[in-house]
Amino acid sequence: MKAAIVTIGDEILIGQIIDTNSGYLAKALDKIGIGVHEMLSISDDKHHILNTLSSLQNKVEVVIITGGLGPTKDDITKKTLCEYTNDTLVSNDEVLTHVTQLIETNFKRPISALNREQALVPSRCEVLFNKVGTAPGMWMEKENTVFISLPGVPYEMKYIIENEVIPRLIAKYKRPYIIHKTLLTYGVGESLLAERIEEWEDNLPEFIKLAYLPSPGRVRLRLSARGTSEEVLQQALTEQIALLKPQIEDCLVGLDEGEPLEVMLGKLLTSHQLTIATAESCTGGKIATVLTAVPGASAYFKGSIVSYATEIKETVLGIPSETIQQHSVVSAEVAREMAQKVQQLLKADFVIATTGNAGPSKGEAEAEVGTVFIGIATPKKVYAEEFNFGQPREKVVDRAVNKGLELIYKEILKNYEK
Amino acid sequence: MKAAIVTIGDEILIGQIIDTNSGYLAKALDKIGIGVHEMLSISDDKHHILNTLSSLQNKVEVVIITGGLGPTKDDITKKTLCEYTNDTLVSNDEVLTHVTQLIETNFKRPISALNREQALVPSRCEVLFNKVGTAPGMWMEKENTVFISLPGVPYEMKYIIENEVIPRLIAKYKRPYIIHKTLLTYGVGESLLAERIEEWEDNLPEFIKLAYLPSPGRVRLRLSARGTSEEVLQQALTEQIALLKPQIEDCLVGLDEGEPLEVMLGKLLTSHQLTIATAESCTGGKIATVLTAVPGASAYFKGSIVSYATEIKETVLGIPSETIQQHSVVSAEVAREMAQKVQQLLKADFVIATTGNAGPSKGEAEAEVGTVFIGIATPKKVYAEEFNFGQPREKVVDRAVNKGLELIYKEILKNYEK
Repeated sequence: MKAAIVTIGDEILIGQIIDTNSGYLAKALDKIGIGVHEMLSISDDKHHILNTLSSLQNKVEVVIITGGLGPTKDDITKKTLCEYTNDTLVSNDEVLTHVTQLIETNFKRPISALNREQALVPSRCEVLFNKVGTAPGMWMEKENTVFISLPGVPYEMKYIIENEVIPRLIAKYKRPYIIHKTLLTYGVGESLLAERIEEWEDNLPEFIKLAYLPSPGRVRLRLSARGTSEEVLQQALTEQIALLKPQIEDCLVGLDEGEPLEVMLGKLLTSHQLTIATAESCTGGKIATVLTAVPGASAYFKGSIVSYATEIKETVLGIPSETIQQHSVVSAEVAREMAQKVQQLLKADFVIATTGNAGPSKGEAEAEVGTVFIGIATPKKVYAEEFNFGQPREKVVDRAVNKGLELIYKEILKNYEK
Repeated sequence: MKAAIVTIGDEILIGQIIDTNSGYLAKALDKIGIGVHEMLSISDDKHHILNTLSSLQNKVEVVIITGGLGPTKDDITKKTLCEYTNDTLVSNDEVLTHVTQLIETNFKRPISALNREQALVPSRCEVLFNKVGTAPGMWMEKENTVFISLPGVPYEMKYIIENEVIPRLIAKYKRPYIIHKTLLTYGVGESLLAERIEEWEDNLPEFIKLAYLPSPGRVRLRLSARGTSEEVLQQALTEQIALLKPQIEDCLVGLDEGEPLEVMLGKLLTSHQLTIATAESCTGGKIATVLTAVPGASAYFKGSIVSYATEIKETVLGIPSETIQQHSVVSAEVAREMAQKVQQLLKADFVIATTGNAGPSKGEAEAEVGTVFIGIATPKKVYAEEFNFGQPREKVVDRAVNKGLELIYKEILKNYEK
């Protein structure tokens, strides 16, 4: 049971856009036991599309195609798919009604001729309803392969995958189980780790595959098991992890469940009815942005004061100007004051504060580029830590955001979970 | 003159990692006139790699392969490439010295047997020196195709591309020019825009290609010209843009130099010595985040008050609770008050305010999911507009951010540039 993912669009081939759809699709398919054999990005060119489709025909059971469904002339996916499946385009009433309503509601105008073309679909295709956009998804079969065409706009693609495609794939195919377990290790390099666990790796059963995923400072070890019995796989993985653990005890952090930290933090705050706020300078509101990207954040997130200009730290937060002059605006003292003042102003249980220099040039504070102080206020104490997150700007901000979330997460765990 | 990009690694095929290398490579190749024919992501499987290489053999001039060069057992790219080019692996002295030094310096230990294997390369390959890591890049030729193998770690791959690959490609191949010009439009949908400029589009010369790149609230029009004379291409593009401009005057923001709106806005604010701040509710600090992602933002960005909880709108901003009760927290009145209060508190010339319901469920305000009021305060006036940005949460927030930036950008243009 194999699938291929095809992305159509010149914007990807010239590097104007990074393809994030394929990664999402791979994850969604993997979850229901469908392995992705390959991913391809090709141009908006009829022959290129036709050649690609026939090269995948009968080689994989499922081909998911995204992109090229817009109403304009450069988008030719629909016509080409219709040609490939020897079909003709017909107008679909349900889609036409939906497109008409969407355009009338959002743009307060009647639909145009080009909008009308959005309702054209191959006569034998099954329409995959796109509630959140005008281009319908399409399910077409040819010999032993299903071709599924979806719009390239990420949230439209995701909507159709979740609501239309996954249920149909589950109903149509008998699939094996694929289970991944990822162990997160810190501080031991990939090659040393590999040498250390070589014997264990050599004795892994055939149906379990090991992969090393290194990134600066850490290595993730991914075990992937594939088979027909979920129970057998789970048990085999549990056994292998039990054998592995004693060998990597010094560097093992734990199992990586793949859930972002802000989601884990949100659950923790909700379950203890705690609230959080942020006092941001160099992160410019990004910690607040990340926290509020989680649905339901209003249950625990109070707000943020982004005091980017130094004067705002004085006028809005009420930090004495002497403190700033004496210690510099990028200092542990100011980070602590920011956290404490926002805790009082916004009446939050926990506060993350940041002040630093994200670069590229030195600011008024003369702190080195990359220096960030993170202040943490809890119901019991206030403290600050100094970090150097290197360069460039983007990395400094992202590392400060992650570190801030990590510090507060650990703080709450420590005080409320044990 | 065509290239293909091949990414090797199961972590991409199961969606654990998003492939950003291919986008970077495409951009780097496009810049020197090498078009990317296709991108492929395949598994760490010998036969899959061999089949992919032979399918690209003589079809493209250049194949760039990333990934699978680590020291561990799951990485088989080097051996497989060696087999494909009928070569044998030999130890390279220069690489061995470099790896030894790197390990000794960074990990304070002698090199291991696995590290030593990093210095093995096919005997006829040209080594592409990897100053920032242990896996060397390799340049191999077979018939009419060059195969370039690079490590998957992004900064190592980038180092070798910039310092070793691009100079060699420029020296080896005569390449055409590829020039892109992108026009940024706001407020007119893709299909309406396409109908309006249909005649112009139909009369574009053969060597200029038009693409529509829609994203929430805006459409970018990308013109790509390809040919042997840079001068001819530039002139033809200038002529076509001059013909197009009068037809889209109402929605054209300007030439998109690959420059996001926040960068354009930053330049505009800086050149007129104006300041900006934000008062955010449903956007949760994202407008501030986007504004401060621009280096130098401290010259014009004062800060933000993210009043996510309703009480913060009263206690910190000082909006009368009667206003909120009377009009609801998601209302034009509250959006205007938020903008005005932050303008006073933060002493900013311009303020963008947002209040709305991003979903997924209705909040306390009973406003429909997707409803957002954007308030704008300028030195002369304060106003608010109502929008419905649909669903899901992510899209509502992004559209509100873009719309807020657009409104303020136009406001400043109108008052200071004419």
